[in-house]
Amino acid sequence: MIRFSVLGCGRIGTMHARNLARHPQARLTSVFDVFTRASDAMAAELGVKAAASVDEVLADPEVDAVLIATSTDTHVELITAAAKAGKAILCEKPIALDIAKVEQCWSEISGLSATVMIGFNRRFDPSFRAVHDRLTAGEIGKLEQIVITSRDPAPPPISYINVSGGLFRDMTIHDFDLARYFAGEIVSVHAFGANLVDPAIAAAGDIDAAMVTLTAASGALIHINNSRRCSYGYDQRLEVFGEKGMLVAGNKTATTVQAFSGAGTAQGDVVLPFFIERYADAYANEIAHFVESVAAGTTPLTSFKDGAEALRLADAALESLKTGRAVTVTK
Amino acid sequence: MIRFSVLGCGRIGTMHARNLARHPQARLTSVFDVFTRASDAMAAELGVKAAASVDEVLADPEVDAVLIATSTDTHVELITAAAKAGKAILCEKPIALDIAKVEQCWSEISGLSATVMIGFNRRFDPSFRAVHDRLTAGEIGKLEQIVITSRDPAPPPISYINVSGGLFRDMTIHDFDLARYFAGEIVSVHAFGANLVDPAIAAAGDIDAAMVTLTAASGALIHINNSRRCSYGYDQRLEVFGEKGMLVAGNKTATTVQAFSGAGTAQGDVVLPFFIERYADAYANEIAHFVESVAAGTTPLTSFKDGAEALRLADAALESLKTGRAVTVTK
Amino acid sequence: MIRFSVLGCGRIGTMHARNLARHPQARLTSVFDVFTRASDAMAAELGVKAAASVDEVLADPEVDAVLIATSTDTHVELITAAAKAGKAILCEKPIALDIAKVEQCWSEISGLSATVMIGFNRRFDPSFRAVHDRLTAGEIGKLEQIVITSRDPAPPPISYINVSGGLFRDMTIHDFDLARYFAGEIVSVHAFGANLVDPAIAAAGDIDAAMVTLTAASGALIHINNSRRCSYGYDQRLEVFGEKGMLVAGNKTATTVQAFSGAGTAQGDVVLPFFIERYADAYANEIAHFVESVAAGTTPLTSFKDGAEALRLADAALESLKTGRAVTVTK
Amino acid sequence: MIRFSVLGCGRIGTMHARNLARHPQARLTSVFDVFTRASDAMAAELGVKAAASVDEVLADPEVDAVLIATSTDTHVELITAAAKAGKAILCEKPIALDIAKVEQCWSEISGLSATVMIGFNRRFDPSFRAVHDRLTAGEIGKLEQIVITSRDPAPPPISYINVSGGLFRDMTIHDFDLARYFAGEIVSVHAFGANLVDPAIAAAGDIDAAMVTLTAASGALIHINNSRRCSYGYDQRLEVFGEKGMLVAGNKTATTVQAFSGAGTAQGDVVLPFFIERYADAYANEIAHFVESVAAGTTPLTSFKDGAEALRLADAALESLKTGRAVTVTK
Repeated sequence: MIRFSVLGCGRIGTMHARNLARHPQARLTSVFDVFTRASDAMAAELGVKAAASVDEVLADPEVDAVLIATSTDTHVELITAAAKAGKAILCEKPIALDIAKVEQCWSEISGLSATVMIGFNRRFDPSFRAVHDRLTAGEIGKLEQIVITSRDPAPPPISYINVSGGLFRDMTIHDFDLARYFAGEIVSVHAFGANLVDPAIAAAGDIDAAMVTLTAASGALIHINNSRRCSYGYDQRLEVFGEKGMLVAGNKTATTVQAFSGAGTAQGDVVLPFFIERYADAYANEIAHFVESVAAGTTPLTSFKDGAEALRLADAALESLKTGRAVTVTK
Repeated sequence: MIRFSVLGCGRIGTMHARNLARHPQARLTSVFDVFTRASDAMAAELGVKAAASVDEVLADPEVDAVLIATSTDTHVELITAAAKAGKAILCEKPIALDIAKVEQCWSEISGLSATVMIGFNRRFDPSFRAVHDRLTAGEIGKLEQIVITSRDPAPPPISYINVSGGLFRDMTIHDFDLARYFAGEIVSVHAFGANLVDPAIAAAGDIDAAMVTLTAASGALIHINNSRRCSYGYDQRLEVFGEKGMLVAGNKTATTVQAFSGAGTAQGDVVLPFFIERYADAYANEIAHFVESVAAGTTPLTSFKDGAEALRLADAALESLKTGRAVTVTK
Repeated sequence: MIRFSVLGCGRIGTMHARNLARHPQARLTSVFDVFTRASDAMAAELGVKAAASVDEVLADPEVDAVLIATSTDTHVELITAAAKAGKAILCEKPIALDIAKVEQCWSEISGLSATVMIGFNRRFDPSFRAVHDRLTAGEIGKLEQIVITSRDPAPPPISYINVSGGLFRDMTIHDFDLARYFAGEIVSVHAFGANLVDPAIAAAGDIDAAMVTLTAASGALIHINNSRRCSYGYDQRLEVFGEKGMLVAGNKTATTVQAFSGAGTAQGDVVLPFFIERYADAYANEIAHFVESVAAGTTPLTSFKDGAEALRLADAALESLKTGRAVTVTK
Repeated sequence: MIRFSVLGCGRIGTMHARNLARHPQARLTSVFDVFTRASDAMAAELGVKAAASVDEVLADPEVDAVLIATSTDTHVELITAAAKAGKAILCEKPIALDIAKVEQCWSEISGLSATVMIGFNRRFDPSFRAVHDRLTAGEIGKLEQIVITSRDPAPPPISYINVSGGLFRDMTIHDFDLARYFAGEIVSVHAFGANLVDPAIAAAGDIDAAMVTLTAASGALIHINNSRRCSYGYDQRLEVFGEKGMLVAGNKTATTVQAFSGAGTAQGDVVLPFFIERYADAYANEIAHFVESVAAGTTPLTSFKDGAEALRLADAALESLKTGRAVTVTK
């Protein structure tokens, strides 16, 4: 039994806390949020303690692991403190917006024995996972091309854009991780960006649409397309093309209903609205994987290093966007 | 080279005449229609002779085969005369509306050597054909169940209903033939009918919707559903279920385009409007099969006997509708 | 908060008990099974009491409702006793295999105020439910035809067949209920059955495949096809055809992955294996509906009467199978 | 009636000649090939003259238009001569492999009144056309992103690779034209290439896989992925994403058959093998459009200028591949 405290009781922290409450090998001990109203509500709902401070959580011998779902700017500090306190750590992505801080964090914690996992939920999606496993098992032969589609249903508020680190570090970072999961080491990045959705995002210095292409050390080519707006829901798709075939993972809808009428045929539901719904299974699997990793003392599938590498690709994309060049990624 | 005359220059005769004009081993010699305006137009379009009478056609040594696309009430007389004149015959379904007349016709022509084929176009549809061939090849093991969906886009005029012989002899007859094509000998028929589409059809003494179920000598069960109206086009589908799997053949649309919007996802085109479009390939294949059969002197896939048997099933369905009983089909 | 005891700790009772344990307005108080090993295991897993007898459960003031998941032959007795004890009742289908017993049960409990719900899970499936609600909202106009496909992945053991009441009362009963849910009052039933799967089922006096057709008082036609074996999983589909269009609900698969290769394109996963997986959401919704009905004092969507009517249709199908006639259903 | 001569009787010339023979407003007068065996065969099949030389064709007053389907290196010379001879011209892509030659050609013929059309068949595919027309009609609002997938079933022989001008000028040129058709003026091109299919292609100095990204003057982003090999057929797809929705056009298969078994569900046929089959309708529509353009004296949809612009994008892609930079396209 792994005993958890959840730090950060916003939307994603709440979801994780509920998943922890349902997991047979996990027990939720406490929750914490700087907004005590949020932590009190979650504590009441789940029948656990609302901790008064992070220090209280880290000092609590009844806490084996922390799930960090606070704002990005606090991640490095919390990871470092938790690792030093001997806690296992499951931290939402990104580790930080500044690769230097990520490296500094690693230099402080790498000597410690803490299990650290970064929350790249998509690797735990049953469909993406099945594609990965079938690729690895050789079903489509050598990997040649990947097309990743990732479009949010609607842009976040500008206040979020302002602290997000930009589209590549905030949104594409998931796709970079997915690219690495399927194609391994990435050696080159090229990015085009555009402002097609909301002029306020341009005014904030960010883009709201992008097409990024990567080359892998294996020779495989990877394309990512992103948009901050999608009329038909949260568009999350994957095409993996190999010498012997192609595996595709598609969107999820609330029902299997299809409508046929004079207007057209086989019209399905809109796709599930956003990540909480789309990746519900993935988040539960992510928790389960972390629990297993902590119990077994193994490195999680989405390690601290994976968090650092995805950020490095985001930085390379940003440099490419600015310079118009494909950027070579060095280790 | 088989030289043809087309008898009947309505919609379906016109289509057949054009297909004959395109077939490399067929040559269209003449066309005939009691409405000379129709035969003159077709003759002009295709650069052939408009015959003045059926007798002229049957006496013409340049005519090897006749394609009979006249009204149903003339079929038996024309088949008989053409067979006696030594012509090969491709006749549109049904042979007649009265099984006694069909049997009488057979008694007159069975001693002659004429090739006689009945135009059950669906056996020549590439998708239905592929399902048949894969079933026969054993892909899904022993046949267990068939579901045939056949819905017209809109009811015909009442003037047509009045001479059609009723839904089972006019429309379901195709499905009965398809059932025999896939399941072989049929031993029992049950039918429910309904008037759901147009009260004028009820007033004319016919039904406009039906569900018919058959049992085959093999034990297989077959379901047919029919409607004289379908909002999304001409609904022509087939499910063939066996011990090891299922093969399904679906509808055809004008394009592969799918639309995704806030209203729903993956909405395709309406299905092709009616038989001329839906079975365009099937009609061309049917002509090709007839030409091959005549050239080789073999019995066509859809023989006179098949025409008689399908009518017998239609009659059984009508009896079932009237009596409420499943009707045993005897040979 | 509704406090439950689960009677019967087999596969389906276990699933219900777990769903109850997760429902925020339900509390599981105790479980009971004649096999104490089963009830002890479930009690241990869920941290509740293993009751020593049904009497103990019914006498327990901490039990507001019983969920009856015992063998069919005990249902009537348990329903009657529980109703007399003032408990709300959610009973798995069928109520009994003998309509006379069902009627006798009703005569004993109808004067009592007990909430009684029969577990017709399919009405609570999100996709079937959505089709129902869209039909009711008028999206496809007047209902004309329904095609229900329901095929089990593999036959049950003969020991189960022997006490099942036969295919119609055991398996088709769900489809009869679904037909009533969509089409309302049924007036006529015709059934063909076959033995295509397992000779031992024939030896036991039952059929293992069926095609049943119903007519509704509204004039709508309904077709049901059943098989005790299906190679590609648990085949559960619904086509609802109306004057303005068609709504279809399809199967569910574990992932959205599609494979493309030289062998073919867009091959999806096999469908979910059986009812526990396929109707996971439906079972959770069923519990939620029961809890709401008990709390509100309203009649559940799947009432005792619905259980009786579905059985009456099963009996009519059996009579039709024996007599070869369509059987008129009288109230 | 437009009277044609077909120059070049290889696979694509043969197909065009047959399409011309079927078109009601076209008449095939003659065919020519330097391999007289090929032109004789085609002339015999279609009942037309096998011209002895291009000069004979261009001097023939019975020839209104030439269809140029010879090898690429002869296109410029034939276009120029035909234009000077007052013939209308439908020339297969590409005009030439060297943009300077294309411009030189234009300077010679632009003052003449000849109708010149370049055979970018994809604009005439019914599905791509429907997507274009629905986009233009505003169905999905402002265009934001396009993903074009274009994968050949198998690489051509190295002898062809050697004279092809390379992947971008030979294969991607169709995708560049499609990008321009949907997105208008292109301002920037970035390309990654790879050798994943056949080492002999690398040895010949070419790539066999590519990912190219374009930006349009409108701000839209376009992604193209190419492969010289595809196990499941000729993969030709299009995703057009706009502010209000997405329109997708997919592959075509020989039948609508889907297979369901223990290995998986809904497996369709492999996609049509290559361009002759996939674009059969498109080629017929292309001929029809040319005939209409010549008859009406209007500029065809795929003009000489379109041929030049697509080549310019191919050159830009090649430059990008070599420099690692996004290349700005200037007019």
